[in-house]
Amino acid sequence: MAAHPQLNRHGELRHLLSIEGLPRDVLLHIMDTAQGFMSFGEREVKKVPLLRGKSVFNLFFENSTRTRTTFEIAAQRLSADVFNLDIQRSSTSKGESLLDTIANLEAMDADIFVVRHGQSGAPFLIASHTPEHVHVVNAGDGRHAHPTQGLLDMMTIRHYKRDFHALTVAIVGDIVHSRVARSDIHALTTLGVPEVRAVGPKTLVPGDLRDMGVRVCHDIEEGLRDADVVIALRLQNERMAGGLLPSASEFHMMYGLTPERLRLAREDAIVMHPGPINRGVELDSAVADGPQSVILPQVRFGIAVRMAVLSIVANTSA
Amino acid sequence: MAAHPQLNRHGELRHLLSIEGLPRDVLLHIMDTAQGFMSFGEREVKKVPLLRGKSVFNLFFENSTRTRTTFEIAAQRLSADVFNLDIQRSSTSKGESLLDTIANLEAMDADIFVVRHGQSGAPFLIASHTPEHVHVVNAGDGRHAHPTQGLLDMMTIRHYKRDFHALTVAIVGDIVHSRVARSDIHALTTLGVPEVRAVGPKTLVPGDLRDMGVRVCHDIEEGLRDADVVIALRLQNERMAGGLLPSASEFHMMYGLTPERLRLAREDAIVMHPGPINRGVELDSAVADGPQSVILPQVRFGIAVRMAVLSIVANTSA
Amino acid sequence: MAAHPQLNRHGELRHLLSIEGLPRDVLLHIMDTAQGFMSFGEREVKKVPLLRGKSVFNLFFENSTRTRTTFEIAAQRLSADVFNLDIQRSSTSKGESLLDTIANLEAMDADIFVVRHGQSGAPFLIASHTPEHVHVVNAGDGRHAHPTQGLLDMMTIRHYKRDFHALTVAIVGDIVHSRVARSDIHALTTLGVPEVRAVGPKTLVPGDLRDMGVRVCHDIEEGLRDADVVIALRLQNERMAGGLLPSASEFHMMYGLTPERLRLAREDAIVMHPGPINRGVELDSAVADGPQSVILPQVRFGIAVRMAVLSIVANTSA
Repeated sequence: MAAHPQLNRHGELRHLLSIEGLPRDVLLHIMDTAQGFMSFGEREVKKVPLLRGKSVFNLFFENSTRTRTTFEIAAQRLSADVFNLDIQRSSTSKGESLLDTIANLEAMDADIFVVRHGQSGAPFLIASHTPEHVHVVNAGDGRHAHPTQGLLDMMTIRHYKRDFHALTVAIVGDIVHSRVARSDIHALTTLGVPEVRAVGPKTLVPGDLRDMGVRVCHDIEEGLRDADVVIALRLQNERMAGGLLPSASEFHMMYGLTPERLRLAREDAIVMHPGPINRGVELDSAVADGPQSVILPQVRFGIAVRMAVLSIVANTSA
Repeated sequence: MAAHPQLNRHGELRHLLSIEGLPRDVLLHIMDTAQGFMSFGEREVKKVPLLRGKSVFNLFFENSTRTRTTFEIAAQRLSADVFNLDIQRSSTSKGESLLDTIANLEAMDADIFVVRHGQSGAPFLIASHTPEHVHVVNAGDGRHAHPTQGLLDMMTIRHYKRDFHALTVAIVGDIVHSRVARSDIHALTTLGVPEVRAVGPKTLVPGDLRDMGVRVCHDIEEGLRDADVVIALRLQNERMAGGLLPSASEFHMMYGLTPERLRLAREDAIVMHPGPINRGVELDSAVADGPQSVILPQVRFGIAVRMAVLSIVANTSA
Repeated sequence: MAAHPQLNRHGELRHLLSIEGLPRDVLLHIMDTAQGFMSFGEREVKKVPLLRGKSVFNLFFENSTRTRTTFEIAAQRLSADVFNLDIQRSSTSKGESLLDTIANLEAMDADIFVVRHGQSGAPFLIASHTPEHVHVVNAGDGRHAHPTQGLLDMMTIRHYKRDFHALTVAIVGDIVHSRVARSDIHALTTLGVPEVRAVGPKTLVPGDLRDMGVRVCHDIEEGLRDADVVIALRLQNERMAGGLLPSASEFHMMYGLTPERLRLAREDAIVMHPGPINRGVELDSAVADGPQSVILPQVRFGIAVRMAVLSIVANTSA
C-alpha cells in the first residue's frame, strides 16, 4: 500500500477511505460531481445508467439502517446491482476471517465494497487486499472516519456559505469519539476554513485535539460566539453508561443547543447535525425545526455525495 | 388535513389510508385498474415501466413478511426501486421519532411510503406531514384498517359474483380486533351489499358493531344461512392468551367452518380468508382446499390491487 | 411425480433437485452453459436479459448468507426480479404449513423457487406440488444434496484436469453428514471418474459408504496418495458437540490437510473446499493460500453454474 492508498498514480480517487490525506482538488471534484446530481431527485425518472451491470456490496459489520439505505439509494439511482449482506448472520459468524469473506465476494465479481466496521482501519485493510478493479468506500470505521458524512457536510456548508475562506465553524459535543467530527475537521482544514472550534466538556473534548488544528472550547458561549456554522453531534447514549457524562439532561444544560445560545452565533449561522437527533439533548426542537436548521438538506446532499463517490471510484483505474 | 385526507381537490386518490370515506367511484376505479393488471402474471416479461425511477419505501414497523413481499412484487413489476427498511434495527430504535424518520426519508426523495404500523392512525399521521409529491399507502395499522386487503376482497367477490347488489356476505370470527373485517365492512357497504353479517361470540363480535351497518349473529348457523360469500378471519393466537376465548379447539367447535356448516350457505357460495390459515381452527382443510375456496385467487388479486394503488397514487397530484 | 422428477418427458431439466438420477448429458449441458457465462464477470455490463420479468424467490428455511447471495447475484445478472423471503419471520413462524406458503407464493406468479431447507427432501416435496410453469432449484437440503455445489465442483475439476476418465479424487472429512460430498460423489461417478475416495475417521466415513461406489480410506496417507483432486470438507462445529469427534485440533492432527500431507498427492493435484474454511482445522493456511488451491476459482464457477441452472430450468416446459 503506497503513501496514498486512496489515490492512483494520477492522483485520482480509487477508494474513499478517509478525508485525511485527500488533496483539496479531489474533495472539490467529488463535491462538483455531487452538485451535478443534486437536481436528480426532482426528475421524473431518478436513474442514470452510470453503474449499470456493476455489483455494489454493502458490507455493514456494524448495523446502520440509515447509512446503508443512503448508499443503496445512491447505487440504485446509478443503476448498479446492490447486494446487502447480512453480515451478522453470514460466514463471518461461522468463524471465517474478514479477508476470506472479502476474497470470496471478489470471486463473485464485486466492483465496489461499501464498508461499515466497528474497528478503525478495517476499510484500509480491505482496500490493501483487493485487486485493481475493486473499489472500497468507507461508510464509517470505529472512531476513525466517516468520509461521505464529511463530504456531505462540506457540500452543505458550501451551498449556504459559498466560500470556506472566512468561516468560523463550531463542532459541539462528543468530539473525541466521533468519526464524523474527525472527518469534518480534516475536510474543513483542507478546504481552508480559518477557524474550526471543538466545543464540549473536557471528557469529550480533550486538549490534545489542538494537534488537529482546532481551537478547543470548554465554554459553550465562547464556542458559539460569531460562528457561521454550528455542527451539533449526536450524544451517543452508550457513552453515558461509560461514566464520561452524568446524564443527558446535564449535557443539555451545559452544551445543548437552545435558541438562546444560538443567538450567540452569527445571525445567518446554519445549524447542522449528522442525525439521528436526540431532541432535547444536543439540540432543542425549536432549533432542529427552526429557520437556521439545514439538517434535512444535509440528507439530500448525502445521496448526491454518495452517487458522486460511487461513480468516481468505479471509473478510476489502478 | 382536510375532511378527505386521501383525496385531492379533484376527488382523486393521493394516499390510500382507509376504505372508510372513499366514494364508490374511487373504489371502482382502483378495482378496474387492478383488473387490467390481472393478466400480467401470465406474460413472458412481468414488468411495465409505470413507476420507473420512482422510489418506494416499505416501512414495516410491525413485521409482516407476506404483505411486505406482495407490495415489493407489485412495485418491482411497475419497475420502481424498492427499499425495505429494517425498522426494528433502524434509527427509530435509537429513539428517533416517527416523524423525524419520515422527514429523513423524504429528503432522500421518496415517492411512496408503504406503511404497516401497530398503532391505529400512524399512516394518517405520516400522510398529514408529507409534502405534496409524496404518497402514503396503508398496509395495515393497528385494529383500524387494511385497505388493500379490503380492495382485493372486493375484487375477488366481484370476479365470482359479478354484482354486489343482491349479496349476503358473512364475516366469521374475531371481528372486533380485525382491521381486515373493518375494511371489508366499509367496502361492502359502500359498494351496495344489502346484508353484511358479523358472526362470532359476543367477546369477539360485540353488539355495537351494528353501528357499522352489519347484522350481528352469535349463532353460526344463522350467520351462514343462504350466504353468497363467507369470509373466515384468522384467529390470532395472541388473543387467546388474553382470555377472550378458552381455546382454539373450542372456537373450532362453535364457529369453525366445516363442510357441514358450509352447506347452510348457498350452493355457489365462495369461501375467503386473508391468510395465513389456521387449518382446523377457523377453517377445516376440506373447506380451505375445497371447490368453493377462492383463497389463492385472493392472493393473485392482491398483487394486482397493489399495483393499481401504487400506480394511481403515484400519478395523482396534490 | 414420475421416476425422474427433475426432467420433463424430453429428458430436459425442469427442476434441479439432486445430482443423483441426472444423466451425464444433462450434467454436461449445464456445465457447458455455465462455461458460456464464465467470461461474464469481466464484462463492462454484467447483465443479460435472459430472465427479465421473471420472479425468483429465495426461500432459505436454513440460513446461509453466502449461498443465498450467490443465487441472488446469478438471478440479478440474468435480469430477474429477486425476492428474498425472511422465512424465520414469515407466516411459517405463524404456524402456516410449508405447502400453504408455497401455494401462496405461486399465486403471486413465482417462476423459480430456490430452496434451502434443513429437512432432506423438502425441495422434492415442493417440486411435486408446483404447477407446470414453476421451477424448483435445491440450494441444499439436510444431509441429502447440494447439487449446484456439486456442479461447480465438476466445473472446477474439468477446468483444471480437462478429462474425468483417469482421475483419482479424494474427499476428506465429514462425509456422512455432508450434502456436498453426496452431490460430488454422484457427479463424479456419473462423469466417469474411476476412483473416488472417502477419507476420514470411521465415525464420519462409515464403511457402508462403499455402496455409493467409493473407496473408503480411514488412513489419510492412503487417501491422499497419487490423488489428482483433493476436496477438503468443512468440519461442522455442531458435529463436534455431538461427540463424534473429540476436538478440532485432534481432527487436524489426524486428517488436516498440511503441506506435508499434500505432497503425497500428485504434484499437479488441485485442492478444493466448499467454504467457509476453518483455517488450521481441515486445511492449513499454507495449503488454502498455496499454489494448488483452487478455492476462489470455485466461487467464480459457482456464479456461472447458478446462472446456467436458473436459465435452463426457466426455459424448460413441463
